[in-house]
Amino acid sequence: MEKKITVLPGDGIGPEVVASAVRVLQVIGKRFNHTFHLGYATIGGAAIDQHNNPLPDETIEMCEGSDAILLGAVGGPKWDNNPPELRPEKGLLRIRKYFDLFANLRPVKAFPSLLDASPLKREVAENVDLMIVRELTGGAYFGEPRMRTENGAIDTTVYSTAEVERIVENAFELARLRGGKLCSVDKANVLETSRLWREVVEAKKKEYPDVQVEHNLVDSVAMKLITNPGHYDVVVTENMFGDILSDEASVITGSLGVLPSASIRGDNFGLYEPVHGSAPEIAGQGVANPAATILSVAMMLQYSFGLIEEAAEIERAVSAVFDDGYFTADLARDGGRTLSTNEWTDKVINEIDTSF
Amino acid sequence: MEKKITVLPGDGIGPEVVASAVRVLQVIGKRFNHTFHLGYATIGGAAIDQHNNPLPDETIEMCEGSDAILLGAVGGPKWDNNPPELRPEKGLLRIRKYFDLFANLRPVKAFPSLLDASPLKREVAENVDLMIVRELTGGAYFGEPRMRTENGAIDTTVYSTAEVERIVENAFELARLRGGKLCSVDKANVLETSRLWREVVEAKKKEYPDVQVEHNLVDSVAMKLITNPGHYDVVVTENMFGDILSDEASVITGSLGVLPSASIRGDNFGLYEPVHGSAPEIAGQGVANPAATILSVAMMLQYSFGLIEEAAEIERAVSAVFDDGYFTADLARDGGRTLSTNEWTDKVINEIDTSF
Ligand SMILES: CC(C)[C@H](C(=O)O)[C@@H](O)C(=O)O
Ligand SMILES: CC(C)[C@H](C(=O)O)[C@@H](O)C(=O)O
Repeated sequence: MEKKITVLPGDGIGPEVVASAVRVLQVIGKRFNHTFHLGYATIGGAAIDQHNNPLPDETIEMCEGSDAILLGAVGGPKWDNNPPELRPEKGLLRIRKYFDLFANLRPVKAFPSLLDASPLKREVAENVDLMIVRELTGGAYFGEPRMRTENGAIDTTVYSTAEVERIVENAFELARLRGGKLCSVDKANVLETSRLWREVVEAKKKEYPDVQVEHNLVDSVAMKLITNPGHYDVVVTENMFGDILSDEASVITGSLGVLPSASIRGDNFGLYEPVHGSAPEIAGQGVANPAATILSVAMMLQYSFGLIEEAAEIERAVSAVFDDGYFTADLARDGGRTLSTNEWTDKVINEIDTSF
Repeated sequence: MEKKITVLPGDGIGPEVVASAVRVLQVIGKRFNHTFHLGYATIGGAAIDQHNNPLPDETIEMCEGSDAILLGAVGGPKWDNNPPELRPEKGLLRIRKYFDLFANLRPVKAFPSLLDASPLKREVAENVDLMIVRELTGGAYFGEPRMRTENGAIDTTVYSTAEVERIVENAFELARLRGGKLCSVDKANVLETSRLWREVVEAKKKEYPDVQVEHNLVDSVAMKLITNPGHYDVVVTENMFGDILSDEASVITGSLGVLPSASIRGDNFGLYEPVHGSAPEIAGQGVANPAATILSVAMMLQYSFGLIEEAAEIERAVSAVFDDGYFTADLARDGGRTLSTNEWTDKVINEIDTSF
């Protein structure tokens, strides 16, 4: 297989973790006989510095000619006081919207060797294996009007039936491939858009008799994600609730530094990035944890290229390196060995390389 | 002191826990020489059954003639399929709006004897003592337009500067009386109403040089409430974020059944209710935990009547009963004794009565 990937290293630790992930990707290519062509472009703060634009046209063009995008992270104190249009995260919001990447997939799975780092008791966190499916291009993030008024401000949450249908369908498909359970999250006792959301789920579920569906209110899910996270399989929700709940869920397993994400649309195109931020305070030191970005590459192989076996091999290798007691500084622990970004990546690559 | 209180027992376990709280209130009255006149009225499901209205005019009138309101809980499966206007929670939303109860105070404090029930590790949860201040009468809960459109639905988040100012001021005052720290939560990188919110906080903080202020994004707070809840003192946020975060925070200490709340406005009038719901599955069995409602009475004494010593006495008594190893069934544990609602209330009353 031959694929083109646009690589957007971004800011802070972005370039370091992306470099690691690219190394792993190339090793997978070698082992499984695929060719990955990489092109590099800017986004976020780096793009503001070079092009005065958090998402330059050159970047959009390169992405348009690619099969998938790999992103590091954006943002940093340098750009914190910029006007809204010149903020790094604007690049993120715009690339999602431009490419219509409406489905944000955020898997949260416990690595047994990392559970000590979880704020939750081991017995609460250990069986967690869930996927949050967040609608990413609608709701209050893009709804109009959004503005100052004479005496205050307003935002608008907008959803069309079609927008809800496509994300809900996506979640049903994922539930079917996973544990067969779907929790749809809304605030139907207050919001009109939530009542629409619930109706769409109710209608769609007729096409998925093999998927067990529940509706839950967002406040109640915010509780249960902590008291009983093992309950969940696929969780689907709108953009703003998804922003909050997926970040909340990211702390369950004590390993924010290892969580990947995918932002995809109807075809196979998608953007893959770690859940963690650009961590400017440790940038350039070679100590960042590349696991989340490496696992984002695994999601790319699976969701954009359909390379299931290759994706599984990356996951296996990452897991094995943790089980062998090798960690980057963020996960440093008694009885483990602390490695640099590159050393830890070498371990993953050795796992993949020596196993054939 | 002489005060009039409207009691709204509500549905499910509401009447049982309210009966306990009223007993404690009367004992406090006797001990500290206050007279509390109680009037009973309906709300929620009970009001729908009797008056076909989740907030009947009689109830509003009685509340208008009172100094404070004590509420049990509303809701239950019986009314789940009612149309929106005849749902129990509509009574709650309407009473908040009618009486302009714009500040919802939700303290979360660890009781050392309850920490085993927390999903969090003891060391994460043990020093928690925070207060979430949620704006309760604005935002997406009441903003217009909220409706179905030709091809979808919309909701509107509306805040006037004045609405933000009064809740923020309230939070600053509370921070000043507590630990002197205020975390303001918004989504200023996306929402216009959040940017207004942040500006108001920035302006107000000049009047409170003794309060240390931080701004945090809602997604980031959703994480940190779990990884480092001890960081927080007063947290202030808008209605929808507050709904989610206050429920999330309620699980930190493992004792949802003991969390009280107050919904107040500029003067001393307020509504006090436990955070937990109506728990229809255990209603009428005499096993419900009355602690949250008893502690809500303590908040009433403090915030509506300025009776600080009396409030503290209730808190002390509740804490002592836990420390003595007495729990209701929801908190049953090895080495503890499980009591009924009434037996547990007796223990609290004995604590208060024998101590003078
Ligand atoms: C940076 C911000 C605009 C963004 C969001 O809210 O979507 C981020 O929190 C995320 O979840 O990717
Ligand atoms: C019942 C519901 C409308 C209500 C709310 O969302 O405000 C509840 O969740 C609460 O927090 O009191």
